[in-house]
Amino acid sequence: MYAAGDVRVEDVLDAAIVEPTDAILRVTRACICGSDLHPYHQMERSETGRPMGHEAIGVVEDVGAGVRSIKQGDLVVMPFAFSDGTCAFCREGLHTACVHGGFFDGYGTSAAQAEAVRVPYADGTLYPLPVGEEDALMPSLLTLSDVMGTGHHAAVVAKVGPGKRAAVVGNGAVGLCGVIAAKRLGAEQIVILGRHEDRIALAREFGATDVVFERGEQAIERVRELTGGEGVHSVLECVGYAQAVETAIGIARPGGAVGRVGVPQDDSLPASLPAFFGNITVGGGPAPVRAYIQELLPDVLEGRIQPGRVLDRTVGLDGVPDGYRAMDDREAIKVMVTP
Amino acid sequence: MYAAGDVRVEDVLDAAIVEPTDAILRVTRACICGSDLHPYHQMERSETGRPMGHEAIGVVEDVGAGVRSIKQGDLVVMPFAFSDGTCAFCREGLHTACVHGGFFDGYGTSAAQAEAVRVPYADGTLYPLPVGEEDALMPSLLTLSDVMGTGHHAAVVAKVGPGKRAAVVGNGAVGLCGVIAAKRLGAEQIVILGRHEDRIALAREFGATDVVFERGEQAIERVRELTGGEGVHSVLECVGYAQAVETAIGIARPGGAVGRVGVPQDDSLPASLPAFFGNITVGGGPAPVRAYIQELLPDVLEGRIQPGRVLDRTVGLDGVPDGYRAMDDREAIKVMVTP
Repeated sequence: MYAAGDVRVEDVLDAAIVEPTDAILRVTRACICGSDLHPYHQMERSETGRPMGHEAIGVVEDVGAGVRSIKQGDLVVMPFAFSDGTCAFCREGLHTACVHGGFFDGYGTSAAQAEAVRVPYADGTLYPLPVGEEDALMPSLLTLSDVMGTGHHAAVVAKVGPGKRAAVVGNGAVGLCGVIAAKRLGAEQIVILGRHEDRIALAREFGATDVVFERGEQAIERVRELTGGEGVHSVLECVGYAQAVETAIGIARPGGAVGRVGVPQDDSLPASLPAFFGNITVGGGPAPVRAYIQELLPDVLEGRIQPGRVLDRTVGLDGVPDGYRAMDDREAIKVMVTP
Repeated sequence: MYAAGDVRVEDVLDAAIVEPTDAILRVTRACICGSDLHPYHQMERSETGRPMGHEAIGVVEDVGAGVRSIKQGDLVVMPFAFSDGTCAFCREGLHTACVHGGFFDGYGTSAAQAEAVRVPYADGTLYPLPVGEEDALMPSLLTLSDVMGTGHHAAVVAKVGPGKRAAVVGNGAVGLCGVIAAKRLGAEQIVILGRHEDRIALAREFGATDVVFERGEQAIERVRELTGGEGVHSVLECVGYAQAVETAIGIARPGGAVGRVGVPQDDSLPASLPAFFGNITVGGGPAPVRAYIQELLPDVLEGRIQPGRVLDRTVGLDGVPDGYRAMDDREAIKVMVTP
């Protein structure tokens, strides 16, 4: 990406081992993320451009001399953040706080909307899959690199559990995966807030019990009507804009929890007073998806959850620029890339 | 209180039963709260004045026809909020979200810096004590009406536990009780942020292991130095001003939790981005102290905790105006009133 709206497909130098803990991944599936739309809207022009893409499945082509558990030929999920797998935070399951970790697709890093990607800390980052590279489950497996794990994180932080009422703010790919996660964790009622009919239809198939099309104060009133006046125990905030956070706090039941996974677009959080007087907890952040793969993978392999249904369009590398446009125009929920 | 700085002691009508679930309490001990200093600084002039005081111990003088478990002659703790004891929130232990509940000392309500106070929902609000009204433990028992329960709430929301590192932002009465609570819940390291030497000395006696006198960015750096660069697992935010919240988030370890009990003075919460990228949870609010009395009372009765030491000055009703001044001038940590 060279600037807002300016996405190009170019030949670049081959990805290569730099550190002995690196692996090189031949990308078999990647995708375009809702968070990629932020630079697509706002990025200032750059002479060198910024490589894009942080979600992938691929085949390990080469490993550095220090890589122990990952080997050439492995088919693996690449989470959106790399992590050493050994620091205190990784051991606690918070890989996105790894002391040696970082995110793919920034200036000067490797990225996944490409034929190949350099993966730091291959042993701590990559997760081998027990299937072939053209398996029919590939779209759902691909969501374990980000959106399914991110929706699950929102649900975990929002303390979804059996018998609880949950709401999901946002009907993008993460919000839809949040519905799957809330259902999977036993929520009794799942309200989705959104207004795109195709996405809402999918949300209902995933387990949403109620739909709120309204926004702002009207959305808050509507959710209260649907929940006996109390609000919901658990709110999954999957947007990131201030109004979405304000709505999320407004629909939470006293003593409830908001799990934020939408990347915040402001440095101050609104509705601090309602959150305080309602004893509402606000948490969340970049999801430690690496930690969640182990828990979610069996449900994907056995077909109990189908998060891959959010990937409703597929393009080759040449189709990536149009894929950004299609997501930005809300023509596609989420675009899969087959390099 | 008639205006900022204008506190008067006046004869008013006797407190009387209004609803059948009411009780009338003869106040034997009350106190002035740090939160009373907010109107003491900011209140606009009122013709009728506002009764003050929300923390008390007293003897039940009269009960309405619907009161079942509380009876005349009982010595009881009166928490700062009244609650019916039967609604869904009370049953869950969040009495400060009681659907029939409310706070003492507002316009048109009864209040505790007085000879007597009318207590709504006596059965759900008051907690009988197994001691006499002049027991030597009275100051510590009195803190169960607010500051000890509030410090405990901060520690619970901040997820203090055995082996965890904790920090307390603020060295007022609540912050000092927060130190007691953190120690009681097993924190291994307890850093207090404050700069009043007498209070810090008490904090050390209560279990604080480290003291940070700095503020803002320097405080954040200092706490990081004291915690191996990581920050603390649990932050008890006992001030309420934006800078204190910002510091609280800044000193939290990734994946950590901030328990807010300082009444917020702004409607937007700062440092949302650091909180998000560190997966730091921010929670808290008005403490359900009624729910905590059962857990804390044995430790007070058996002398394992001595929160009453924060009450370092005692006045009669006539001394209340000077009590406000003394707390505002930081001459006294917290003032006890013996009507």
